[in-house]
Amino acid sequence: MAKIILSVNAGSSSVKISVYTAERGQAPVQLAETSISGLTAPPCTLSYSRGDQVLDKDRMVEQKVETQADAFGVLLQTLIDDGELGEISSRDDIGIVCHRIVHGGDYTKPQLISDETYHHLEEINDLAPLHNATSLRIVQRCIRELPAAHNVACFDSQFHASIPEHIRTYPIDPEIAHSNRLRKYGFHGMSYAFITREAARFLGKKPDEVNLIALHLGSGASACAIKAGQSWDTSMGLTPLAGLPGATRSGNVDPSLVFHYASDVGKLSPASTKELHISRAEEILNKEAGWKALTGTTNFGIIAASDDPKMKLAFDLFVDRVSSFVGSYYVSLHGKVDALVFAGGIGEKSDRLRRAVVDNVACLGFKLDEAANAEKLDGKTTVKDIGAHAAEGGEGSPKHGVLVCLTDEQFEMARTCAEDPELW
Amino acid sequence: MAKIILSVNAGSSSVKISVYTAERGQAPVQLAETSISGLTAPPCTLSYSRGDQVLDKDRMVEQKVETQADAFGVLLQTLIDDGELGEISSRDDIGIVCHRIVHGGDYTKPQLISDETYHHLEEINDLAPLHNATSLRIVQRCIRELPAAHNVACFDSQFHASIPEHIRTYPIDPEIAHSNRLRKYGFHGMSYAFITREAARFLGKKPDEVNLIALHLGSGASACAIKAGQSWDTSMGLTPLAGLPGATRSGNVDPSLVFHYASDVGKLSPASTKELHISRAEEILNKEAGWKALTGTTNFGIIAASDDPKMKLAFDLFVDRVSSFVGSYYVSLHGKVDALVFAGGIGEKSDRLRRAVVDNVACLGFKLDEAANAEKLDGKTTVKDIGAHAAEGGEGSPKHGVLVCLTDEQFEMARTCAEDPELW
Repeated sequence: MAKIILSVNAGSSSVKISVYTAERGQAPVQLAETSISGLTAPPCTLSYSRGDQVLDKDRMVEQKVETQADAFGVLLQTLIDDGELGEISSRDDIGIVCHRIVHGGDYTKPQLISDETYHHLEEINDLAPLHNATSLRIVQRCIRELPAAHNVACFDSQFHASIPEHIRTYPIDPEIAHSNRLRKYGFHGMSYAFITREAARFLGKKPDEVNLIALHLGSGASACAIKAGQSWDTSMGLTPLAGLPGATRSGNVDPSLVFHYASDVGKLSPASTKELHISRAEEILNKEAGWKALTGTTNFGIIAASDDPKMKLAFDLFVDRVSSFVGSYYVSLHGKVDALVFAGGIGEKSDRLRRAVVDNVACLGFKLDEAANAEKLDGKTTVKDIGAHAAEGGEGSPKHGVLVCLTDEQFEMARTCAEDPELW
Repeated sequence: MAKIILSVNAGSSSVKISVYTAERGQAPVQLAETSISGLTAPPCTLSYSRGDQVLDKDRMVEQKVETQADAFGVLLQTLIDDGELGEISSRDDIGIVCHRIVHGGDYTKPQLISDETYHHLEEINDLAPLHNATSLRIVQRCIRELPAAHNVACFDSQFHASIPEHIRTYPIDPEIAHSNRLRKYGFHGMSYAFITREAARFLGKKPDEVNLIALHLGSGASACAIKAGQSWDTSMGLTPLAGLPGATRSGNVDPSLVFHYASDVGKLSPASTKELHISRAEEILNKEAGWKALTGTTNFGIIAASDDPKMKLAFDLFVDRVSSFVGSYYVSLHGKVDALVFAGGIGEKSDRLRRAVVDNVACLGFKLDEAANAEKLDGKTTVKDIGAHAAEGGEGSPKHGVLVCLTDEQFEMARTCAEDPELW
């Protein structure tokens, strides 16, 4: 029997629900998608599409929406109230709600959450309060208001459980590292799992045969070395702050930098709440840095298109940091790389960024097909080949492929749930 | 007329003076070398050699030596008291004292220091109090006690003044970065300058024609991409903490890690003094981390020789981090690399480390000559080729060279002074 699956993805300023119908063990089929944006910059707007039909696009929300949990409530009601969406006529029609949770601590797979197991998730919250707290409030609301549904936590870190010890270990006191659970975890894992499977399919390989350097580049950006289908290394660390810069995130900086940036950075930020303890330092590096700090905009498309020196600096800086990780991961995969894969909002949309990165790493045997790179993705193609190829029978084909992947974290969560026998 | 030059190199636990005689514009000739070790783990011991003759080796020091400035005083007296060292019979025989200063802020070349200009150095001190403060106390003492000598500050950061803006910039608020002077500076510059010149000479090129990936690996460790003889990128940052792990230093970690390591890490460490402000966080990451934290020893030779799992973890971790930087810098040099150069105590001595790193980066076209790698350096060879070479006229030679360089920061400082017309 088919079940309705909701995939919930709560960000710092938005909440998105994708609605799927799925049979046990089968790929889910998307029915609808709805989201609310603007939580940190009201008024909030709502978008809603069912199948190919766009029913709402950035419509002002009338209800009071202050938190991600409020937004979830409005979105859920939107789905129930839509008479044309016959699959959901009441709350009881929802079989599974899967929640994207950024930090999963030591969890290596999704967890069924109940009132009894919820506190396990709260324990992890301290590792990444900036990222987990809002998702957890939505989980609480679902446990309360959708008693008939299974609630499943899907973790962004779980894909990286395969990172070997000498890579995930920080060179710090091992006892403190153990008791405080300090190691590289890595994030964007739902995306990397999707990319691995889809790139393997595209290349005609099994997922466990494929070696990739995958770049998930959005307002949060990371890189991942994928060896035999598993994560071998990734640029984010204990938290999503490490590695590449993002829209408002510094990425790797001298760990002593923040102590020279402002005084008293170890103190709690005024934005902290009873449940949410954030040092001023973490707030500066997560919220007041990145290319927004350099240019004034979070929109990388504007940066990539501009010749303004400030914009150019931010662009060149990002290209440099991304290219560095490609070089590092090329070495950690010992040069056995099927393809370099661009994904995430920037990876999908910015042909200029892709060209700059691939030009930088040409010495490793990557080369673009300029025409393919310049073409827009049609939104239905999941993987597109943008690498150069020699003419049939010709010589001089580049050693490694270059792909763009339209990654889909919500689909990946729903797929995981459809395949989990515990839920059926 | 020849001048006597003292090169002073003060570390956290030791002070070393190398004595040279030099003619204007000529390469200095070393006359003697003396050092005191054990400042952080008394009793202190003194070593002294004149020419090829070892006069003292780890002799217990009778005088009270509590600071680097005390140690300098004892070393200076040792030189004056040595009747056989005819070139120094009194303090007035010393023409130039060059001081290795770790952080030089925006200085791009050595600075002649006087009572009047000394305060400029104090201003920089805030950027790296852990590293500069002890050297500055020796400078003060020399200004006071050697009025006839020129005092010259040689900065570890000056070689890196050529790093381009998009690489040296941190993605943080540019106004705060400017006013607080927050950017990548880089260190080990005296060593990289020496390596560049000597590797170029060995390769039969001019220094400004040579592209290198240089690794200065000691209890402080860093990597440098050298393009056309100039620093293009380096792994250390605002301070020497960033980049590679060291004996007691974490290197790059998630910038939020330290806030999860202990509470109140933003507070001043109890080790702070009136002039020296160190946060507890900086103390943890600089002094209580690195391979000492993982293994209990600062001696990398012991780690490299052991099969104990803790030692192996530290070894593999270090090899992974070093190899990553080689991959990054290979990309930033667009594959145009004359040689990978190993230097510093570990780079010179650990053939096992060199083999592990070169094996890791074989995919980039580096290969060892196993026999040459296993040979000890004789202490007189400055540069040794340890790369594989195909037989005469044969094919399949690796694309890039591999060298070991016996780097010499003291000589580099003396050479700089001999060539500076201001001092003659």
